[in-house]
Amino acid sequence: MAGEHKKGRPRAPGEQELIAAIRSRAVQLRANRRKNGFLTLGIGDDCAVVRPRRGKELVVTTDLSLENIHFRRDWHPSQSVGHRCLARGLSDLAAMGARPEAAFLSLAVPAELTGPWMDGFLDGLMSLAELHHVPLAGGDMAKSPLVVADIVLIGSVPKGKALLRSGASAGDVIYVTGALGGSAAELRALERRPGDYRGKYKVGHPHLYPEPRLAAGRKLMRGELATAAIDLSDGLSTDLAHLCEESRLAAEINVEALPVDARATLEQALHGGEDYELLFTASPKTAVPSQVGGVLTHAIGRMKKKGKGPQMVLDTDGTRTVLKPEGWNHFR
Amino acid sequence: MAGEHKKGRPRAPGEQELIAAIRSRAVQLRANRRKNGFLTLGIGDDCAVVRPRRGKELVVTTDLSLENIHFRRDWHPSQSVGHRCLARGLSDLAAMGARPEAAFLSLAVPAELTGPWMDGFLDGLMSLAELHHVPLAGGDMAKSPLVVADIVLIGSVPKGKALLRSGASAGDVIYVTGALGGSAAELRALERRPGDYRGKYKVGHPHLYPEPRLAAGRKLMRGELATAAIDLSDGLSTDLAHLCEESRLAAEINVEALPVDARATLEQALHGGEDYELLFTASPKTAVPSQVGGVLTHAIGRMKKKGKGPQMVLDTDGTRTVLKPEGWNHFR
Repeated sequence: MAGEHKKGRPRAPGEQELIAAIRSRAVQLRANRRKNGFLTLGIGDDCAVVRPRRGKELVVTTDLSLENIHFRRDWHPSQSVGHRCLARGLSDLAAMGARPEAAFLSLAVPAELTGPWMDGFLDGLMSLAELHHVPLAGGDMAKSPLVVADIVLIGSVPKGKALLRSGASAGDVIYVTGALGGSAAELRALERRPGDYRGKYKVGHPHLYPEPRLAAGRKLMRGELATAAIDLSDGLSTDLAHLCEESRLAAEINVEALPVDARATLEQALHGGEDYELLFTASPKTAVPSQVGGVLTHAIGRMKKKGKGPQMVLDTDGTRTVLKPEGWNHFR
Repeated sequence: MAGEHKKGRPRAPGEQELIAAIRSRAVQLRANRRKNGFLTLGIGDDCAVVRPRRGKELVVTTDLSLENIHFRRDWHPSQSVGHRCLARGLSDLAAMGARPEAAFLSLAVPAELTGPWMDGFLDGLMSLAELHHVPLAGGDMAKSPLVVADIVLIGSVPKGKALLRSGASAGDVIYVTGALGGSAAELRALERRPGDYRGKYKVGHPHLYPEPRLAAGRKLMRGELATAAIDLSDGLSTDLAHLCEESRLAAEINVEALPVDARATLEQALHGGEDYELLFTASPKTAVPSQVGGVLTHAIGRMKKKGKGPQMVLDTDGTRTVLKPEGWNHFR
């Protein structure tokens, strides 16, 4: 749209300069230089061009990261915002058992954030992209009073092998990877002491720097271990409800079996969200290893036939209570 | 992120209800019902699953539409916002000569817009999707104080045949489709009389309801008529600069040859933006038809070798002046 927003702060870089800066960082990314045969044409045209491999299907996901909704500038260092933005999309690929092939970033920022804040954001995003060999293939850029980032991930998976939410059967065992509630517990700490983690950039921060479970997802897909899978973004109670919904089943969770993060409460483990672990189901006949793709697995319950009773039940030492989906919901 | 934004307006639908509503509209979309062999799994899992056709490459583009940046709620009826959101992405596919295969929508809205405003937005978007047989395959949804929409389009094109910005040679003739400046002129009118177009929904509104030139783009690709192409989103002066940049050439435009929209000034035709026409180049030996894919074509200049002079020159009746890229730039 022409006519508005043209009066500038003279020192803020122009859109073309910003795109050029991102493009040059994308070119530096080893993943962009590597000729993987998938990305034929990256940033700089109306579209990126990709060449899918024979025998593969592609999976596609988009995830919004909005200032004051998904992160706060006074709680999250910009490296964390960039890391989490990409991690959200990678975690969706992990839940399908897919291998990441290309990322696209639509980014809108206030003019005053085009300096160090943006550098940190790109550092966080590009480091995680490098770790998982994902090229940054394109995107869009705009000005906005609040930070808006939408990440698009394309992954590949052998035809017909993607892990779906809808594949579970009654009697299947329910598993989770890693620990639960750590992200919510760390968020609580950030809320109490904003700025406490500023500038730190390392592992062991399940909220600021979650690790998408790509290796675990691919092992579960390749070994045909899982019948269904979903990533824990909204919280166990809400994501399990999605899996029940899509598989048309009910579920029973054994509270004692839940791998609650040492810092977290049971409440946070059940409803906290943003742990980005995998929730998956497997046939009781399948021997699921205690560790998959470098992360522990825990059997936490069973899928059940859908009856007249509640969709989800918690079993605490033999006492059964209803489990309601009380994780993240944007419009509640 | 758990913990915030949970206190609700009781009558606002939840995120799941909104996703369910969009999912049900997507299912109603003939494009989603049609078994086109591309979209294997749509809305409802961690990712969509698509199955690329043999011999094809895929092109991917993402485009942001932000309230008060790309549109204003008091100028643009919600049908127009939805239409323009999808049109932006489709226009990028047109510029590559690609056929649209699937769309993904990341959408964030204030809670009070989840009623009629959202219905209008989806009407506008879905009508255009229907017209071009594009299924809505997935996306994301969040709450936000301002409307944020990011559209992702995937298209297909025969391997190695995508129209690029970088393909022009010195001596190539420069063409545009349709007329220029109409969008800027209509925007100006909206600015003067906000609300004037509210509720109207029809052709002949180059700003509110632009027509992406998909048929023209595919004709230019299939007939191998164009050497390079770009869509006119930022304005002729800025988009021609992109094409010069990527083709490493200069350009000369003949002012008298410009197809200026009857309502528009020359200024609006040169710098206005958002006309979503195609700018393309062709060898002087190629007979470019006067009409391609249902839209008129006009030869407006020539590509030149890059010398020490300006990148772009305007020729007005033999008088040559420098043409600077003065179209849309978010950070100016």
